[in-house]
Amino acid sequence: MRLRPIRSWAVALLFTVAFATPALAQRDPLPSWNDGAAKKAIVAFVKATTTKGSPSFVPPPERIATFDNDGTLWAEQPMYVQLLFALDRVKALAPQHPEWKDKEPFASLLKGDVKAALAGGERAIVEIVMATHAGMTTAEFKQIVKDWIATAKHPVTKRPYTAMVYQPMLELLAYLRANGFKTFIVSGGGIEFMRPWTEKVYGVPPEQVVGSSIKTKYEMHDGKPVLMRLPAIDFIDDKAGKPVGINAHIGRRPIAAFGNSDGDREMLEWTGAGGGARLMMLVHHDDAQREWSYGAESKIGTFSDALMAEAKKSGWVVISMKKDWRRIFAFEK
Amino acid sequence: MRLRPIRSWAVALLFTVAFATPALAQRDPLPSWNDGAAKKAIVAFVKATTTKGSPSFVPPPERIATFDNDGTLWAEQPMYVQLLFALDRVKALAPQHPEWKDKEPFASLLKGDVKAALAGGERAIVEIVMATHAGMTTAEFKQIVKDWIATAKHPVTKRPYTAMVYQPMLELLAYLRANGFKTFIVSGGGIEFMRPWTEKVYGVPPEQVVGSSIKTKYEMHDGKPVLMRLPAIDFIDDKAGKPVGINAHIGRRPIAAFGNSDGDREMLEWTGAGGGARLMMLVHHDDAQREWSYGAESKIGTFSDALMAEAKKSGWVVISMKKDWRRIFAFEK
Repeated sequence: MRLRPIRSWAVALLFTVAFATPALAQRDPLPSWNDGAAKKAIVAFVKATTTKGSPSFVPPPERIATFDNDGTLWAEQPMYVQLLFALDRVKALAPQHPEWKDKEPFASLLKGDVKAALAGGERAIVEIVMATHAGMTTAEFKQIVKDWIATAKHPVTKRPYTAMVYQPMLELLAYLRANGFKTFIVSGGGIEFMRPWTEKVYGVPPEQVVGSSIKTKYEMHDGKPVLMRLPAIDFIDDKAGKPVGINAHIGRRPIAAFGNSDGDREMLEWTGAGGGARLMMLVHHDDAQREWSYGAESKIGTFSDALMAEAKKSGWVVISMKKDWRRIFAFEK
Repeated sequence: MRLRPIRSWAVALLFTVAFATPALAQRDPLPSWNDGAAKKAIVAFVKATTTKGSPSFVPPPERIATFDNDGTLWAEQPMYVQLLFALDRVKALAPQHPEWKDKEPFASLLKGDVKAALAGGERAIVEIVMATHAGMTTAEFKQIVKDWIATAKHPVTKRPYTAMVYQPMLELLAYLRANGFKTFIVSGGGIEFMRPWTEKVYGVPPEQVVGSSIKTKYEMHDGKPVLMRLPAIDFIDDKAGKPVGINAHIGRRPIAAFGNSDGDREMLEWTGAGGGARLMMLVHHDDAQREWSYGAESKIGTFSDALMAEAKKSGWVVISMKKDWRRIFAFEK
């Protein structure tokens, strides 16, 4: 009677030693990726750049990977999240702006007619952004974003926006960091709109976020220094602006870059033009069932035929959300 | 006869155990600092912010320390190093610019009359900077800086400029990093002038350098993407620009900041305005024997009486190079 428990304990130990340790060591770091060309390309690139003695070995400080945000790390449909934030802010600020009732694009917005409001094109968007993103201190804006992102819900899925992030990309970020890569966000979105939550959601600290910005000004308010957000564009981190932003913030050329639209073309070109092993990937939204299906015809996250042609010509890997991703969101069963 | 060597070996071992290990563990991380208020303030601040359970404990991601460069990490006399670089570049480029012979500020410069050249004030300096810092790709400029810094010599000491760095500050940078701090340079100098050598000299990688910049533009040259340096100021990272640059690049408020002149005032104010333990320090150049002695009256690295008054009022620690630094340069005996 006394021997049996000891024996099963010994058997359990044997099993642990024989199976559990190797199983742990070989655990798939990318479980939400189906086996296929995209996953293979990632693993091969990481092996090539991090294996000592490999002809493509890259020293850790130079392992820079840049990620677009909208449509690459989180969903951008039916509208950019930051635009939805701005629309919510217009509603919240309306009581302080009685004049908006008769002034476009605010009047249409407040009537719930987003389409009419945005008919004014880029000018309308800039007006909405300036009215909602400027005129407060950086600390105040950070708190506004934090409060909003903690409570706002996606209009279609009713999930928090921070749940609308792509599980395979979270795994990719973690896999690269575990292999000595420094991961950066390089987004057309507002830098101060992303920083309050990117560390928690993506593991990317504020100093590794590059984005569009408005000007700020150092001022003294009641003897305390503040940075005021001014209604003036400082930098647009999109298209040809992305390599400029990368150079300004990082000062090194990435060796891996991930995007999903025409806005990322120059970032991938810039990354690919360096020597040695490179990995350029584009997320293609082709899964109408689990996410959205859009591309060349979409105004948001345009993936033009020209981009597809350049990807083929330049060896950029196109990720099919439908075929390459086993799971898109963490909340899926 | 056989016992004695064993006995002395045993004695040696005892000594090792009794003294050597604690001695190693307590090795002074700041050997070039004299014991005094400045060194005490540094050690107390690091202990307070990094000791678990301390009321002033700061989690590692928030341990941000910013350092001015000219006059704080390396010498800025008899002239800013970058200005000496620009003057050398004017000479190197003169054969391609025959028109400079009759055009100020270049004409005076080429005759060796720096004072006359700079008599034109800020406009003259901007002209010299644009003529020598713009019109090439970022990669080309990086190479020009690398080649220059590898060979150029300080006009007074005849040492390489990278030997004109302050040994106590190198120790401080290393001490902070060993305690989980992320160290940044926040300088009025050109960001692209510093990045090619800050990693090697200070252990500060390019992505942790904040500085002044000119605009760049993404272009295709013979099918290869380049970033062209344009003759247009993008950002001046000095005075009230320093908190703006810190916010743009780092996105967090530093908890420690180090400077030496009026140009650093706002950076120290911004740092000091946060909650919890803070360390603000100003290097005072008061050692005419081992370095230079200058302050309120100096055009380079002005340390005004108003700055000294604010330091006293705000509890900023003034570092006396003469009294607080045992050694200034590594090349000293």
